[in-house]
Amino acid sequence: MNNKRVVVFRKEHFNAAHRLNNPLWTIEENKKIFGRCNNEHYHGHNYELIVQVTGEIDPETGYVIDMKILSNLIEIEILNRFDHKNLNLDTVEFKNINPTAENIAVVIYDLLRNKLNASLELKIRLYETERNFVEYPA
Amino acid sequence: MNNKRVVVFRKEHFNAAHRLNNPLWTIEENKKIFGRCNNEHYHGHNYELIVQVTGEIDPETGYVIDMKILSNLIEIEILNRFDHKNLNLDTVEFKNINPTAENIAVVIYDLLRNKLNASLELKIRLYETERNFVEYPA
Amino acid sequence: MNNKRVVVFRKEHFNAAHRLNNPLWTIEENKKIFGRCNNEHYHGHNYELIVQVTGEIDPETGYVIDMKILSNLIEIEILNRFDHKNLNLDTVEFKNINPTAENIAVVIYDLLRNKLNASLELKIRLYETERNFVEYPA
Amino acid sequence: MNNKRVVVFRKEHFNAAHRLNNPLWTIEENKKIFGRCNNEHYHGHNYELIVQVTGEIDPETGYVIDMKILSNLIEIEILNRFDHKNLNLDTVEFKNINPTAENIAVVIYDLLRNKLNASLELKIRLYETERNFVEYPA
Amino acid sequence: MNNKRVVVFRKEHFNAAHRLNNPLWTIEENKKIFGRCNNEHYHGHNYELIVQVTGEIDPETGYVIDMKILSNLIEIEILNRFDHKNLNLDTVEFKNINPTAENIAVVIYDLLRNKLNASLELKIRLYETERNFVEYPA
Amino acid sequence: MNNKRVVVFRKEHFNAAHRLNNPLWTIEENKKIFGRCNNEHYHGHNYELIVQVTGEIDPETGYVIDMKILSNLIEIEILNRFDHKNLNLDTVEFKNINPTAENIAVVIYDLLRNKLNASLELKIRLYETERNFVEYPA
Repeated sequence: MNNKRVVVFRKEHFNAAHRLNNPLWTIEENKKIFGRCNNEHYHGHNYELIVQVTGEIDPETGYVIDMKILSNLIEIEILNRFDHKNLNLDTVEFKNINPTAENIAVVIYDLLRNKLNASLELKIRLYETERNFVEYPA
Repeated sequence: MNNKRVVVFRKEHFNAAHRLNNPLWTIEENKKIFGRCNNEHYHGHNYELIVQVTGEIDPETGYVIDMKILSNLIEIEILNRFDHKNLNLDTVEFKNINPTAENIAVVIYDLLRNKLNASLELKIRLYETERNFVEYPA
Repeated sequence: MNNKRVVVFRKEHFNAAHRLNNPLWTIEENKKIFGRCNNEHYHGHNYELIVQVTGEIDPETGYVIDMKILSNLIEIEILNRFDHKNLNLDTVEFKNINPTAENIAVVIYDLLRNKLNASLELKIRLYETERNFVEYPA
Repeated sequence: MNNKRVVVFRKEHFNAAHRLNNPLWTIEENKKIFGRCNNEHYHGHNYELIVQVTGEIDPETGYVIDMKILSNLIEIEILNRFDHKNLNLDTVEFKNINPTAENIAVVIYDLLRNKLNASLELKIRLYETERNFVEYPA
Repeated sequence: MNNKRVVVFRKEHFNAAHRLNNPLWTIEENKKIFGRCNNEHYHGHNYELIVQVTGEIDPETGYVIDMKILSNLIEIEILNRFDHKNLNLDTVEFKNINPTAENIAVVIYDLLRNKLNASLELKIRLYETERNFVEYPA
Repeated sequence: MNNKRVVVFRKEHFNAAHRLNNPLWTIEENKKIFGRCNNEHYHGHNYELIVQVTGEIDPETGYVIDMKILSNLIEIEILNRFDHKNLNLDTVEFKNINPTAENIAVVIYDLLRNKLNASLELKIRLYETERNFVEYPA
């Protein structure tokens, strides 16, 4: 008999500053498209991050993945990198990528995907505010 | 290389009165099936609406869709139509459709589907209360 | 030694329709002051109610008041009266009182105050929406 | 024309004690893997349960399933069985199954699946804490 | 000029098992008063704890109290003592005190009061569930 | 007869970048006290703001204060000033004041106090994160 496949979710958060800007555009184009999010001195968010891992229940532990291990992995790979940082200035990941919620979710996915066993599926949900959030992959 | 597909979510809310009733049934049948929700003088809810749009990240903006545009669209098509309204009496959409959460979600989907680019997938989640909610399409 | 004084809180909710209107004003005055809340066909809310009772811990039970008793009291006095009702049409309490959040809180306070032991202090918090709420007495 | 397929969700909760333990392991192995969750005297949680049912809208009622019926079913099958219980000691379901969130979700799924019409799809989401939750089936 | 007095709040949580019981009563009396909370094998909760400290803003730091210091204090004094524990069996504090939310709040207050500078006022809010919570002192 | 005194609350939010720093201290002292919050490139938050106004119910409207008027006042005085801004660089208010949650609450209080009728009491609650928040005046 196959083991049951279950999705497990771990919620973490980090606080960061960012600015939306396309360096190939003029100042006016950036202001028009990104509005207040283009503020040259940055603004910030409390990002809520939900990491979703799908796999089979291990019959010995009853776990898909030990939440302590998953939580530690998120801390090392994501929170230490982005928490209390300016995403545009303090990180290599967003040197050439606009730190929209969409792009941040893709970057987080790629960072965690490299560290997770290939047998586990991964999905990222990221809340920029309570009312604006994204999920990747679709 | 294809662009990444991401789901974006926008949360809005509206407050409305409604009454569940099937005009083809007797008063007794309506009371039996719909209970307190059949109250002839209506009751009401704070509806929480989450509009979910799936598409590719635009490499120039980093957006699937500009949240300000999506928020404005929801305001024009949904909130202006239903907020602070009596769904049964004040709207054409529910003249002949029972305003259950299921049917409201389908109506909202149809209204927004007409206005969104065909390349974008759409899904509606509607909270009637914190404990009762629906999603369409399945 | 005196027993410790503690505040206990019980959260309940009810869904109701209402309309804000002052019958002594003209239609235009009502529209100007109450805006969309004056809609003649009513709108509605999920009201979140927090009943706050302050008193001494009973050394035998460790309770200020048994939450099951408090919850039953709220159900009988408040929920049965207002849940799934039209506050303007279906209740005697708001026949001559405008059902603003402020006035609803005062009415709920008076209904519960009559039923609670005089040694217990009472306060009502009422959420009309997540963003608009009131407390009585001040 | 086919009826629309909609997902409906009902949120309930129960409070229970549990302990994670594999009887085939030594005390040291259990402590190493399950950490504080292995505490021999148990600890506990407020479990938030979201039951998700997918089916066609009934054109007569506008419902996929009457939420009162679904809520009663959850009360009878799940809450009466697990609420205010010690999952390890007071239930037959977890006599030989480790009560991880993953396994609890599978058990709840199986209990409800037996009672729901075969035409309805079922999914269970279970929050052990606000930050740790699971979904079954994947 | 006096410094401004501000209240600061820090939210933490712990998970614990407990049982309500008065050893001076008969089994029947305990069942009658405490109902399901008297279950001899315990049940449990995710306790949400809000520690509220009032004092003057330090003009050098802009803080009433450094939240990292307050958070560490709560971890050492409260979480290490009660998290993932059986309050009745694993703690000295509730050997002879019934672990109602009221009594837990008083115990937490006394533990923290001893460690905080006397110039700071302290208040404890404890959520046993989302719907039942207490505050001490009144 | 006196009119009833009620507290009304309005919740708003703004997103901002900030940095904690005391210019009279060395770099090392700032790092020691403010830790990651001292990051020279700023970080940010979704600030949740609850404005609490206490006064008598106006017998004509049933309002303490019209929530639309209060919401507009908060938008003009607070959100337009701080939303999507860098508090340290983009505002005159925090040119010489460290933007801790405590100090932000005092500044918001002072800005709104000037605009509110003197008969109304005012209190500010500000959430920097879900777990760290402040209230002023105490």
